[in-house]
Amino acid sequence: MPETAALVERLRAGDARALARAITLVENDAGAGEGAAALLTACFPYAGRGLRVGITGAPGAGKSTLVDRLAGRWRAEGRTVGVIAVDPSSPFTGGALLGDRIRFQDRQGDAGFYARSMATRGSLGGLAQATADVALLIEASGKDALLIETVGVGQDEVEIARLADITLVVLAPGMGDDVQSLKAGVMEIADIYVVNKADREGADRVEREIRAMQSLAQTHSEWTPPVVRTVGTTGEGVDRLAEAIAKMQAWLGQENRLAKRRARHWERRLDAMLRTELMRRARRHGVAEDELARHAARIAAGEEDPWSVARELAGRIVED
Amino acid sequence: MPETAALVERLRAGDARALARAITLVENDAGAGEGAAALLTACFPYAGRGLRVGITGAPGAGKSTLVDRLAGRWRAEGRTVGVIAVDPSSPFTGGALLGDRIRFQDRQGDAGFYARSMATRGSLGGLAQATADVALLIEASGKDALLIETVGVGQDEVEIARLADITLVVLAPGMGDDVQSLKAGVMEIADIYVVNKADREGADRVEREIRAMQSLAQTHSEWTPPVVRTVGTTGEGVDRLAEAIAKMQAWLGQENRLAKRRARHWERRLDAMLRTELMRRARRHGVAEDELARHAARIAAGEEDPWSVARELAGRIVED
Repeated sequence: MPETAALVERLRAGDARALARAITLVENDAGAGEGAAALLTACFPYAGRGLRVGITGAPGAGKSTLVDRLAGRWRAEGRTVGVIAVDPSSPFTGGALLGDRIRFQDRQGDAGFYARSMATRGSLGGLAQATADVALLIEASGKDALLIETVGVGQDEVEIARLADITLVVLAPGMGDDVQSLKAGVMEIADIYVVNKADREGADRVEREIRAMQSLAQTHSEWTPPVVRTVGTTGEGVDRLAEAIAKMQAWLGQENRLAKRRARHWERRLDAMLRTELMRRARRHGVAEDELARHAARIAAGEEDPWSVARELAGRIVED
Repeated sequence: MPETAALVERLRAGDARALARAITLVENDAGAGEGAAALLTACFPYAGRGLRVGITGAPGAGKSTLVDRLAGRWRAEGRTVGVIAVDPSSPFTGGALLGDRIRFQDRQGDAGFYARSMATRGSLGGLAQATADVALLIEASGKDALLIETVGVGQDEVEIARLADITLVVLAPGMGDDVQSLKAGVMEIADIYVVNKADREGADRVEREIRAMQSLAQTHSEWTPPVVRTVGTTGEGVDRLAEAIAKMQAWLGQENRLAKRRARHWERRLDAMLRTELMRRARRHGVAEDELARHAARIAAGEEDPWSVARELAGRIVED
C-alpha cells in the first residue's frame, strides 16, 4: 500500500494536513476497513512515546480552560501537544469542528500543536475505539503530550480513561448535586483531583468532600490522588497542576508502573477489538447484512428469543 | 432445569422475593452463565407487554422526584409499576441498594410496585445489557409500566434509551452549562422534554432553547417532542406529563410504530449479544483466559500491534 506509506511518512514528519486526512480516513470506516487498519498498524510503532493525560468532569467545571492552559504551558516549555476534545455538542449543526476553530484560534499556525474534537455519536463501543484510533495517529505525528478531554461519568469516560496514563478529575464549587454524583463514579479513575474555580465560595467544601470520599474508599494503589486548586480563567494554580502531573509521571516511571498500567488498559481494549474482529468474520461467513434486522423484528414481536438467535448465528461460524 | 421453572413461576405470580433472587442471579453472572440465560429465556415470552418509559437528564434536574410522582400516579390508577434507577453513586459503599430502601420507603409492602437500583459499574457494554436483563425480569413479573431512570448523556444512556419505548429528557433552569451540553446529545433520543423546577426563574429560557434546537434539527420523525413543565416537589404538571406519555403511547400504537421501534432497538442489542456469544465461544475454543493479558503486555511494550493479535486470535476459531 504505497499510498498508506506515503501518508504515514508525511504524518510522521509533522504535516498537519496529512494527520487530518489520516484521522478522517480512520473515522470514516471506524477502524474496521482495510485502509484504516493498515494505516493504524503502520503508525502503531511510532505511538505510545508521549504522555497521555485524560481530563474529565461535569459540564461547566471548566475543563476546556484548563486544557488550554496546560497546552499553553507545555508549548511554552517547547513540548509539542495534541488535544482530543470528546464533545457531546451538536450532532446536528456540526458544531464540534466549528468549536475547534474558535477555541484554538490563537494557536493557528503553531506546528507543534494539534487539536481535534470528536462528537459522542456512533455505534456500540464506537466512541472509545474512535478516540483510541485518533490518539494513536496524533501520537505518531510526534506529539510529546496528548490531552484527552471528556465530559461526564458514563461508561464512555471510563473506557476513554483507559487511554490515558494519568487521569485528572475536575470539579468546581457551586455545582450542587453534580459534584455529589460525579465523585463516586470517577474515584476509580482519578489520579489527580482538580478543584477549579477555586476563587469561588465552596471550594473548601468540595476539597473536604473529596478527602472524605478518599478516606472511605479502600484503594489498593500506592498512589494517593492529590487535590490541586486552580482558577482556569486566570491561570492560577496551573503551575501546581503541571507539577502534580510531572510528579505522577515520575512515579509511573518507577517500578515498571507505566508499562503495567498500559498493559492493563490494553487488555480491555484488546477484548473489544477481538469482539469486533469476530463479528467482522461472522458477517463475512454467513451472517447476512439484513439478517440481524429480520431477526430483530421477530424478537420484537415475541416470535423468537434473542439468546437462541445469538446462539444460532454464532453456531454458523463456530461450534459451541 | 426444574429450579428455573419454579423460580419463573413464583416470579410471574408477583412474588417480589423471587424477582429479587432472579435479578441477583442474572447480575452475578452478567447474563453469560447457563443459569442466567435459561432464566432470561424462560421469562422472555412474558416480557414486552408493558410500557417502558426512560427518564434521563443531568444530575440535579429532579429525575428521581418525577419518577416517584409518575409511579405514584400510575399506582393510584391501579397500574402496577416497576422502577430501575441506574445510579452512578457509590461503587465503594454499596449505597445504591441503601438508596432504594430510603427512597421508596413509603411503597414498602405495595405488591404492585418494585424498584431496583443499578450502579454504573461493570465490564464493556455491561451496564446496558445488565439493565436490559433486569428490565425483562421486572416486566415478566407482570408490571404494566416500567420506569428506567438514567443520568447523563453518554453512550450508556443512548444504549439504555434503546430499552425504552418512550424517552423523557428532564431539564431544569439554573443549571448553566449543563443544559447547553445536555441538549444536543439527547435530542436524538428525546420523545418528550420535561422542564422541571418550572417555578424557578429561567424556565422560559430553557423552554425557548429547546424549541430553538428543535427548529434547527432536521428530524425525520412525524413525532414532534412536546415540552412539558413540571414542579416535581409539588406534583404540579405531573398530570400533563402523564397525558403526554399517554398521547405518545397512543401514537406508537398506530401504524405498527411501537413494533418498528422495538425492532430497531433489538437490532442493536442483538448485535451486542452476538459479539458476546462469539467471544464466549472463542474463549472455549482456543483463546485462553490469561492470553489477552499476556498479549496486552507485549502490545504495551510495543512488541506486537493489537490488530495483528486480534486477527491471530480470531483466526483460531474462524478463517478470515
